[in-house]
Amino acid sequence: MTVTQQRVAVRPEEIRRHNLSMLLRHIHRHGEATRAELTAAMGLNRSTIGALVADLVALGLVTEYVPSGGERAGRPSHVVAPRADGPYVLAVEVAVERISIAVVSLGGAVQARRVTAIEGHDRRPQAVVRRIVDDAAWLAQQLPHSAWPVGVGVSIPGTVRRRDGFVEHAPNLNWRAVPFAALLAATLPAQLDVQVGNDADLGAVAEHQRGAAVGYDHLVYLNGSVGVGGGIISEGAQLHGVGGYAGEIGHMTINPDGPACHCGSTGCIETYIGEHALLRAAGVTDRHGPAAIAAIFADADAGDARAVAAVHTVAVWLGRSLANVVNCLNPQAIVVGGSLAEVVRLDRSSVEAELDRRAMAAARSGVQVLLPGLDQDSALIGASELAFQTLLTSPDSPVVSLAAN
Amino acid sequence: MTVTQQRVAVRPEEIRRHNLSMLLRHIHRHGEATRAELTAAMGLNRSTIGALVADLVALGLVTEYVPSGGERAGRPSHVVAPRADGPYVLAVEVAVERISIAVVSLGGAVQARRVTAIEGHDRRPQAVVRRIVDDAAWLAQQLPHSAWPVGVGVSIPGTVRRRDGFVEHAPNLNWRAVPFAALLAATLPAQLDVQVGNDADLGAVAEHQRGAAVGYDHLVYLNGSVGVGGGIISEGAQLHGVGGYAGEIGHMTINPDGPACHCGSTGCIETYIGEHALLRAAGVTDRHGPAAIAAIFADADAGDARAVAAVHTVAVWLGRSLANVVNCLNPQAIVVGGSLAEVVRLDRSSVEAELDRRAMAAARSGVQVLLPGLDQDSALIGASELAFQTLLTSPDSPVVSLAAN
Repeated sequence: MTVTQQRVAVRPEEIRRHNLSMLLRHIHRHGEATRAELTAAMGLNRSTIGALVADLVALGLVTEYVPSGGERAGRPSHVVAPRADGPYVLAVEVAVERISIAVVSLGGAVQARRVTAIEGHDRRPQAVVRRIVDDAAWLAQQLPHSAWPVGVGVSIPGTVRRRDGFVEHAPNLNWRAVPFAALLAATLPAQLDVQVGNDADLGAVAEHQRGAAVGYDHLVYLNGSVGVGGGIISEGAQLHGVGGYAGEIGHMTINPDGPACHCGSTGCIETYIGEHALLRAAGVTDRHGPAAIAAIFADADAGDARAVAAVHTVAVWLGRSLANVVNCLNPQAIVVGGSLAEVVRLDRSSVEAELDRRAMAAARSGVQVLLPGLDQDSALIGASELAFQTLLTSPDSPVVSLAAN
Repeated sequence: MTVTQQRVAVRPEEIRRHNLSMLLRHIHRHGEATRAELTAAMGLNRSTIGALVADLVALGLVTEYVPSGGERAGRPSHVVAPRADGPYVLAVEVAVERISIAVVSLGGAVQARRVTAIEGHDRRPQAVVRRIVDDAAWLAQQLPHSAWPVGVGVSIPGTVRRRDGFVEHAPNLNWRAVPFAALLAATLPAQLDVQVGNDADLGAVAEHQRGAAVGYDHLVYLNGSVGVGGGIISEGAQLHGVGGYAGEIGHMTINPDGPACHCGSTGCIETYIGEHALLRAAGVTDRHGPAAIAAIFADADAGDARAVAAVHTVAVWLGRSLANVVNCLNPQAIVVGGSLAEVVRLDRSSVEAELDRRAMAAARSGVQVLLPGLDQDSALIGASELAFQTLLTSPDSPVVSLAAN
């Protein structure tokens, strides 16, 4: 029995639009399906599904075809598929060392992408905007004429105000108080809805929808590289908090007497499991960045004692951190991404041992530690999901459908 | 834009029942209202509201009356009120030193209550069940003949499996693996739905519905006495986690090298802000329990240096703990209950200073630390809300309405 809040009464005229949205969401998430399968999955009758599919075909969002071959008796059920050459979103991941921009169609397929290494001045907001606009134009030329953009989703490694895509602070990009969604929207040639999210929040959505945590409706995605952030899913929906800042797991205190953190506090989880902590534990003082981190993992894999010990140290603190997440949120799964995924691969037993010791038994027994199913694309695919929300919520809205060829 | 999961299509025949539930929920939460006010609040038309109210009157759940007096032109709008002599729930709070049992009617009013001090053997599950059954019978005799029970809600200071009210562990009652909901349901003379919840979870619901945090839909209730537990509300709904164990904030590690905790871990938040920590900080070794705690607070209030320092120490650790909650969950409000409320009253500035230092700026600026609005009744009122869910979800279900006189 749940103490839920259902505040809004349902009016009959809303049902058709609701069901149209539900059907498109189903096709987007699960891919092509026969009308018979859709009828069963949606709990609606056959004629209602037929009418809704016809609406989606007319809107240019899905196609229908009769499967060829087969000798079965009776009429074959039509197959309904998302259009690969129809609406698309631009998904952007702004990371510390690169910008990735991809064209993603309904159903979640990446149709094209461009990745650019960045450093120094390339990281400034205006330079990032320019890169996105240029790449978007280049990518659009690679697409069929029938394709049209319905939104832009951007992943940022920092705290993002949810309602307007204002970046409060992205320390590793050196951004503070950047109205990034507004900047990008104003510079794009076409009028497109721009949504901006935190990288770990978007990674959680993507791993839940299409990655390692499909079917796990209580989920935490912990993304660790230089910085450490988290995304939380509860009852299948993202937990944002009131402003969109939830999931700053890297800045939870795990030892008040611990090292100083760039956030101004001391003993943050990030100071124990972020990449700088791994470098420190391995005694590496002259290098940093992805290559230096990869070298430690390679050394640990080869049995180098110092590298093994460094990975172990981080694994123990990772286990302590995950135990706190388990006690607070009681998730079914924690997906560990970024370079922390490699720590789990190399020393899972130390992570699990701290969970055994520190997480409450009932919650501990119900949680699994998983590696990402989308490898390095979690945040990018999450950005595409964010950008698709307007279309999925209102498939027949003039805002998105008027753009159709 | 939210990435939500809406999985279930709506069928027209469900609308009336949904709206009936919505209307009863509104009246339960907000109390009596005119038909005109209900029409505006629910977004339904006047005739639909009239029909739904008539249904609720026929079910014996609400009454209607025409307000007397007033010289206004036109027909006065009928007032719809929850029946004080209609359906009621039994709300039970099992605490370490007492059992409270109350009759709560629709609208949340406590109509009668009984409180019994317990110690030693009185805390055994079978003794608690017997106490509840006896008190329920006694209370029922004090009520009008028209009243009928629709459910029982029980608050337990421990981890409770949500789906069946199985108590995994209530350390301060010395309970482990107690199927409490089943035990109580089997012993009650009438067939009544029994729901069991964790005290802090229920406190969160009550403070959100009727206490200090009305209107705060992102909320954490931290309940601290001997043990420390939390209840989390996100987007207006309780965050349970997959098994119902979320909110074990007291057992999040805040310093791995800290004191041993009864849970088997070390440096849990509870070991720094639970009542034993306050006693230790104050140098009190020969007493414990509510009187000893109250004496420390009284001494601190009177300016006794050792008591002031003890409260300060706990306040600093409380601030650190709340900063972790803010970074993880980005709530609008944290309600601090139990004896920790007194720590906030006596030394709020130390709590807030640690929040300033350790919580991320964007989330910190959006959160308030509040004292409970229901004083010591948060968990009891929360238990009543849990017990009302069946009726509120299905006001016309035979299970609840057949019991009506």
